[in-house]
Amino acid sequence: MSTIERREALRETLIEVAEKAIANGGLAQLKARDLAREAGCALGAIYTVFPDLDALTLAVNARTLNRIDGAMRAGGRPDRAPMDAKRAIARLVELATAYLDFAIAQTGLWRALFEHRLPAGQTVPDDYLAQQMALFRHIVAPLEALQPGLSERARLMLARSLFSAVHGVVDLGLEEKLTAVPLPELRRLVVLLATAMGRGLLQVEPEAARGRSRRH
Amino acid sequence: MSTIERREALRETLIEVAEKAIANGGLAQLKARDLAREAGCALGAIYTVFPDLDALTLAVNARTLNRIDGAMRAGGRPDRAPMDAKRAIARLVELATAYLDFAIAQTGLWRALFEHRLPAGQTVPDDYLAQQMALFRHIVAPLEALQPGLSERARLMLARSLFSAVHGVVDLGLEEKLTAVPLPELRRLVVLLATAMGRGLLQVEPEAARGRSRRH
Repeated sequence: MSTIERREALRETLIEVAEKAIANGGLAQLKARDLAREAGCALGAIYTVFPDLDALTLAVNARTLNRIDGAMRAGGRPDRAPMDAKRAIARLVELATAYLDFAIAQTGLWRALFEHRLPAGQTVPDDYLAQQMALFRHIVAPLEALQPGLSERARLMLARSLFSAVHGVVDLGLEEKLTAVPLPELRRLVVLLATAMGRGLLQVEPEAARGRSRRH
Repeated sequence: MSTIERREALRETLIEVAEKAIANGGLAQLKARDLAREAGCALGAIYTVFPDLDALTLAVNARTLNRIDGAMRAGGRPDRAPMDAKRAIARLVELATAYLDFAIAQTGLWRALFEHRLPAGQTVPDDYLAQQMALFRHIVAPLEALQPGLSERARLMLARSLFSAVHGVVDLGLEEKLTAVPLPELRRLVVLLATAMGRGLLQVEPEAARGRSRRH
């Protein structure tokens, strides 16, 4: 292997080892010494491929975003024709439950997405932000069917907002201190929320939401 | 003044001075030296009443939560009779717009609520958490009218989730980098979201959300 290939191989190994550590024990379990031992490299070798553990965590989180994207994509039939309203509501429910199911199956990885904070002054790379945005895009498609009158920008904001709503319920439901929510109840609540949002958005005329001062 | 009274007076002055600094310049503007000058006290005197600037920030944020609580309470008529569905939907819209209006009027204080992070290992005091919870309680009341079949716990989770949804739109709308959303459009979007959630929740039978396997 060339030096470049070796570095690339070590990078991949470290991401896999770190992913396993985060999946099993959460971010708090991520220790350079353990990672080096698991990866079979010297401690210092980690820093030849990642500037610090934050960069490694960001690489794991990017992979997690990809996995969630895959899970959300999975249920989506590539409808050629525009979605009708019924399908759009069903799609919102699919997306919300796909997200819940991922969070249940991969709680450690999922939680690391929200727990990880870059040190002050560092900003999240653009391609990571683009991956986050890809998740919201899944929600934009059904919103087009439910609220065709909205601007693209408003639809994207609404998509992020619905994501926040579902994320909020999932987050509370899986919170360690509050283990009192049985998973079937949590799933029902997520379905209720997604269904209600879909039906409600279909019902509200965009004009109604524009207030009484504007009439066409 | 007794020593206790003097300490209490200094504490109040520091909170007011810090509140003004955060309101005008955000958390980044909070500097002990400036605070001491504004409060007319020695630099070291700050630390006789607050262990550190994080504790002072938390005191300002607690006051901000109280202000938001007041704004959300304001529109609420103390309905003796249980709310009907129409009033419940209107109430959700009132709460969402009260929150938006506060965030617009006091962007610095509002942003500090979400930007401030305690140092690792420190946890938020219980009474601060109780104040956060009070905001969600405003949303629980209309949810009782819209989804009477839900458990109290599920209703509280839903209330927090709706709060997240509205907060998400407000947050994006007021984000500094994306100044492109005109306020009237943002207000329409918040009204649309709250109306849709209200109407949707009213429409969805809790049983429907429980899936087809359970019928009465």
